Amino acid sequence: MQLDTMTLTTVQDFRDLLTRLPLADAEATRAAALRNGMLTKPPGALGRLETIAIWLAGWQGTARPRIDRPQVAIFAGNHGVVAQGVSAFPAEVTVQMVANFRSGGAAINQLAQCFGATMTVAEIDLDRPTQDFTQAEAMSAQDLVQALRVGWDAVDEQADLFVPGEMGIGNTTSAAAIACALFGGSAQDWVGRGTGVDDAGLTRKANAVAAGLARHPSRDPFEVLRCLGGREIAAMTGAMLRARTLRIPVLLDGFIACAAAAVLHGANPAALDHAIAAHVSAESGHARLLTALGKPPLLSLGLRLGEGSGAALAIGIIRAAAACQSGMASFAEAGVAEG
Amino acid sequence: MQLDTMTLTTVQDFRDLLTRLPLADAEATRAAALRNGMLTKPPGALGRLETIAIWLAGWQGTARPRIDRPQVAIFAGNHGVVAQGVSAFPAEVTVQMVANFRSGGAAINQLAQCFGATMTVAEIDLDRPTQDFTQAEAMSAQDLVQALRVGWDAVDEQADLFVPGEMGIGNTTSAAAIACALFGGSAQDWVGRGTGVDDAGLTRKANAVAAGLARHPSRDPFEVLRCLGGREIAAMTGAMLRARTLRIPVLLDGFIACAAAAVLHGANPAALDHAIAAHVSAESGHARLLTALGKPPLLSLGLRLGEGSGAALAIGIIRAAAACQSGMASFAEAGVAEG
Repeated sequence: MQLDTMTLTTVQDFRDLLTRLPLADAEATRAAALRNGMLTKPPGALGRLETIAIWLAGWQGTARPRIDRPQVAIFAGNHGVVAQGVSAFPAEVTVQMVANFRSGGAAINQLAQCFGATMTVAEIDLDRPTQDFTQAEAMSAQDLVQALRVGWDAVDEQADLFVPGEMGIGNTTSAAAIACALFGGSAQDWVGRGTGVDDAGLTRKANAVAAGLARHPSRDPFEVLRCLGGREIAAMTGAMLRARTLRIPVLLDGFIACAAAAVLHGANPAALDHAIAAHVSAESGHARLLTALGKPPLLSLGLRLGEGSGAALAIGIIRAAAACQSGMASFAEAGVAEG
Repeated sequence: MQLDTMTLTTVQDFRDLLTRLPLADAEATRAAALRNGMLTKPPGALGRLETIAIWLAGWQGTARPRIDRPQVAIFAGNHGVVAQGVSAFPAEVTVQMVANFRSGGAAINQLAQCFGATMTVAEIDLDRPTQDFTQAEAMSAQDLVQALRVGWDAVDEQADLFVPGEMGIGNTTSAAAIACALFGGSAQDWVGRGTGVDDAGLTRKANAVAAGLARHPSRDPFEVLRCLGGREIAAMTGAMLRARTLRIPVLLDGFIACAAAAVLHGANPAALDHAIAAHVSAESGHARLLTALGKPPLLSLGLRLGEGSGAALAIGIIRAAAACQSGMASFAEAGVAEG
């Protein structure tokens, strides 16, 4: 899809994209399933690796998919809602962690390196937090478009797997508000301990979410994102949409990345067909959000860090699925009896 | 531990080793936990990666563990019990798959390559299957010692993570018999569809296991292995024991690898402290066996292939855990507020 950000100047431009999304390559999917059935293993014996490989084949347009150029893209933003006492860490930690990403000291640096992924970092107006959504709309329409475009522009067109990640003190509260607005339920259903708030902090989070939802009644996905979201969340939404237009498969990380994904899902339930849930985190709302999105997680290891860490951890699984699909011999090639 | 196979000439020699196993390095474990608490992440936010890293630190004897030289070692054997109609594939497939391993066409080849592991293959007397355990003892004492030694000798002393895997048509039946003998329950509790037997095949498996247990009443772990096991299973038992004497951490694969591990566990419940369960397979008895061994699995992806495939798939997770523990900056180093 030949589109650059010059043509994406309004929220409506992003909405329009969601009505004409490219699909997986049906012929490659079919050829991959056929090849899978000839490989030297009992049918189905590689379990979920087989369905992943066939899914990947569809998005990469080949019966023999590969993961050679995975990209991790981290987005950072600050949140006015921290004024409500919703985080265990001070807001300065966002900019401090961005410096840590740039100097290679964070968990996501080790994970990206481990799995041979490139890593980009985009901080978005850290000195200009979103408005406290209990008091005002988090972002203007212009802010939202700018953040969506940051994400759109961050995707490497040559990547063969895309992992969006985030950093933003306060952003589990924003993500809970988005999830609650899009999928219903009570604020308590969606808030969790984030980086480690105590019971009183958890109550403040629930109160903030309830106040935000009461103040901003629209349930239109992009309006929800604008009024309750954050810049890094909107950037992830834009990046996932860009990956879809490029047919690049996406690994969804934790609660916040899935809240960003939920905006696309709300606009078009098929908009996440190019995405797999990499893991279910320890953040209490994440399992509920994955269920709402219809995305069973690959991993369940109790992570709750963000940064794209759980999704980066799954790159090896996706690469392994591709390697088996593309590198194994067939029964005929290997001279093995089919039983 | 200065031991070579010259000193391991009887089953008793292996039994003796199990009474004097080396332990993890308590000082390295303590230092790793201390370091973990200083890294730039909320406490516990890397979930199970943190406990894995600290466990690994203990066995590697350093607060900064690494996975640079993982080894996959595949053992193959043939089983007389196939005469009871327990497998969906003919016995010739064992030797055919060994050829496939050597020419690089199997799933385990792709997975080992994916995760930078060396891979060795040891086939053990494929032209001399074990005796059908419904009719006779599967192996003589000499056969058992020979197979244990094949495994012992296969472990690379320089490996920093060891993955034993197997190939052997009929070996889920042998593994079920071992598990049933060591942990009790009925034959039906432990048999599963293996490479894909139908209901009638499943009944034949349960009957074979019940007949084997009735014929061989000893519940001594090494006697169970000798009477009901297979050469590749015994080799995995020997390899896991050798890894323990070298303090090399081990990833346990599926039902058959865990049956081999269960022999060590039966002789000394602490004998598997150097091992983690990499995954829970789709083979129905595996989850039960992991529970009996007290080993919660890392992955649950519906694999049921053997070959060490599920364990190889987890190498990336273990490496990632080590990389975060060893490569992340501390709060002080990164200038990040601790909240």
